[in-house]
Amino acid sequence: MISDETMTYTFTPIARIHSCFKEKFGIPRQPNLVKDAPSFLVFEPEFASPEAVRELQGFSHIWLVFVFHRSKPGQWQPMVRPPRLGGNKKVGVFASRSPFRPNPLGMSAVRLTSIEQTDQGPVLHLKGADILDQTPILDIKPYLPYSDIIQDSVGGFAPKAPGSDLCIEFSSQALAQCREREKEIPGLITLITQVLEQDPRPAYYDESPKNSHKIFGIRLFDFDLKWTQKGRAIHVISLDPV
Amino acid sequence: MISDETMTYTFTPIARIHSCFKEKFGIPRQPNLVKDAPSFLVFEPEFASPEAVRELQGFSHIWLVFVFHRSKPGQWQPMVRPPRLGGNKKVGVFASRSPFRPNPLGMSAVRLTSIEQTDQGPVLHLKGADILDQTPILDIKPYLPYSDIIQDSVGGFAPKAPGSDLCIEFSSQALAQCREREKEIPGLITLITQVLEQDPRPAYYDESPKNSHKIFGIRLFDFDLKWTQKGRAIHVISLDPV
Repeated sequence: MISDETMTYTFTPIARIHSCFKEKFGIPRQPNLVKDAPSFLVFEPEFASPEAVRELQGFSHIWLVFVFHRSKPGQWQPMVRPPRLGGNKKVGVFASRSPFRPNPLGMSAVRLTSIEQTDQGPVLHLKGADILDQTPILDIKPYLPYSDIIQDSVGGFAPKAPGSDLCIEFSSQALAQCREREKEIPGLITLITQVLEQDPRPAYYDESPKNSHKIFGIRLFDFDLKWTQKGRAIHVISLDPV
Repeated sequence: MISDETMTYTFTPIARIHSCFKEKFGIPRQPNLVKDAPSFLVFEPEFASPEAVRELQGFSHIWLVFVFHRSKPGQWQPMVRPPRLGGNKKVGVFASRSPFRPNPLGMSAVRLTSIEQTDQGPVLHLKGADILDQTPILDIKPYLPYSDIIQDSVGGFAPKAPGSDLCIEFSSQALAQCREREKEIPGLITLITQVLEQDPRPAYYDESPKNSHKIFGIRLFDFDLKWTQKGRAIHVISLDPV
């Protein structure tokens, strides 16, 4: 684990996330913004012990420490453009939660809904994760309200959750597709609404009229969600099979 | 950074903590329990850029992601005995914040009091860190109140901060030594009181009368703090030079 000569530390994933977010585009920018997003965590065989999660079920939320495994090494810059500031103002990388960091480590507090004991070890069922499918997890810690809630904290340039003033409507095709899929994916309409309310378009997106017919798409579960956006109005077109 | 064949991830420290806690014994068990504990963070030369911390000063608190560098590899067990439960009940390692974990990663939210710009780069002045001196820091992130405060969270077997019913008194020698040292270390008496209120003795400590004269010691700053403890009464003996 420790190499003192070269001053580096090597870690092995203990688990992987299985999430509805199959690509980076469209992933909520913090946990719990899309609070109904379901995911589950499967331990690697070496760590798949019911003992290692004993008493974890008493905590409503857990921290996941993970690797931004799709951020390539060396991809970081001292300054980043957070979407929060419209993509046109730079802040220091350590003043941001950007995935492009010197050490691409992420941490998210997510809701633990249940722990399922399976033949392959415990599976943690989660809600609200803002994490790409197949992300390697390095650590799990309980969220400790008495310590992790800092009531008098001040949040710099991001004092509040990004509010949404977007109005989302579904085409009759999209609505029929959602209703069909809700048999396997309960709450799908709510989930799609929450994802789109985050305005997943790039922060620097050119909103001029010439772009008002552009079709956006993100992969969720096993389909491509397609929509157009005119000002604050989002029109969901369809859920296309991948 | 990434080695896909062996499925491991290697990280390089970006900074080191300089803290008053010179040994593991006596370190507060969560951040902000000893809220006046001062420390500072010095960046490694490669990361010592004023740009990388731009806008960070607007945040009252920051997360430090660090390595429990004194926890030896392979030292973890699936279950641990948290001090919270008196040291006689086991819980899963992932239901604890124990430093003995499969990947010995720690995370602490601490108060950022100021950022000093020096010839060697920015130095972050901190309060409330529960981190050993010289700990390697892998990442710094802003504490985001809107996301990191989870008001409806439930804290399992650790629902509240450990209360202190300890009564701490200083010998006249200890008091004189503190007053002398307060010129360089402002608030030293408060700090020593906060440290001892956490009851740093091992959770499984035998409180029987035969141990009531045992002298405890922890290294703080450049001195050894010595005390005795009888029931809930702590008597601070002296601050001995190391």
